[in-house]
Amino acid sequence: MYEGAIQDLIDELGRLPGVGPKSAQRIAFHVLSADAVDVKRLASALQRVKDLVKFCTSCYNVAESEQCRICRDPRRTNEVLCVVEEPKDVVAIERTGEFRGRYHVLGGAINPLEGVGPDNLKVRELMTRLSSGEVKELILATDPNTEGEATATYLALLVKPMGLHVTRLASGLPVGGDLEYADEITLGRAFEGRRAV
Amino acid sequence: MYEGAIQDLIDELGRLPGVGPKSAQRIAFHVLSADAVDVKRLASALQRVKDLVKFCTSCYNVAESEQCRICRDPRRTNEVLCVVEEPKDVVAIERTGEFRGRYHVLGGAINPLEGVGPDNLKVRELMTRLSSGEVKELILATDPNTEGEATATYLALLVKPMGLHVTRLASGLPVGGDLEYADEITLGRAFEGRRAV
Repeated sequence: MYEGAIQDLIDELGRLPGVGPKSAQRIAFHVLSADAVDVKRLASALQRVKDLVKFCTSCYNVAESEQCRICRDPRRTNEVLCVVEEPKDVVAIERTGEFRGRYHVLGGAINPLEGVGPDNLKVRELMTRLSSGEVKELILATDPNTEGEATATYLALLVKPMGLHVTRLASGLPVGGDLEYADEITLGRAFEGRRAV
Repeated sequence: MYEGAIQDLIDELGRLPGVGPKSAQRIAFHVLSADAVDVKRLASALQRVKDLVKFCTSCYNVAESEQCRICRDPRRTNEVLCVVEEPKDVVAIERTGEFRGRYHVLGGAINPLEGVGPDNLKVRELMTRLSSGEVKELILATDPNTEGEATATYLALLVKPMGLHVTRLASGLPVGGDLEYADEITLGRAFEGRRAV
């Protein structure tokens, strides 16, 4: 529809997740009127992500060297291992400042409908890490949805023979939320997990 | 929050229009797992838009040479000139296949709240084009919103002394829509502009 380069860019942008034809067009025209130096910076940032970013050889988080920042940190304990689905979950947990152990990033959750089984995740690598015997507590911090719950249940059964302390993050009411707006499953879980004050 | 290159990319993507922090993160991780050749194509498409795309010296539409495809087309008439706000409006009108004249892209609409006046648009260039006397009909196809209407009214007054036939696109009910869902202004305009059958 447009001539040459601008249409090429609209097509390329439209392939990105969450970018529809209208946003692709809007971004392309923004790029057209943006400073050349800003566009160069974006183009090189794209290229550098492919060239520089690797996955940590211990925990499979994103990293720029052999090991990620968290695995390199000597002040963190090896006794608690937190299993998450994606690198962005690591960032979310780090933001709380509550956790001083290590992570293990699975790279997704078990999802038979999309053909993702344990073999497509870093499950074998998790078992190898656990076999050293250093880990005392395993926190299964997969998402609280169907796939995440299934993955947690699968892993819990798998590591049971190892005699580890296996935990799952608490389900309940979000802090700052209204009780009346909570869905019935969340509210049910909150009842189930009630604590003495 | 992330290490080096991936955080740089999230920051750069977050500066694009309509891309929030969550989408920027999602796109960055998509890029990380995408094929290197696809990422290279996107990066070079960005760069090429800045290097190759210019604005047509006649109508200010996007172009890759001195003049755009439409201005170069000898089969189109110079007698009808259609004034639009943006290059994407040219694409929308071209899709109808109804128009065989030339365009003039203003580069926006008069919007005093955002500091856009006639001097920031290609109004002087429009007057120069009209002064040749070749144009018989001027179609003011700015958007049917406050800024577009204001721009059309301004241009209509400006070109009045030239004795041109000045028109505005019809307002009315969208084809395929439901009468009961039309807003009152659109329905009012549809009454006002009713035609004998």
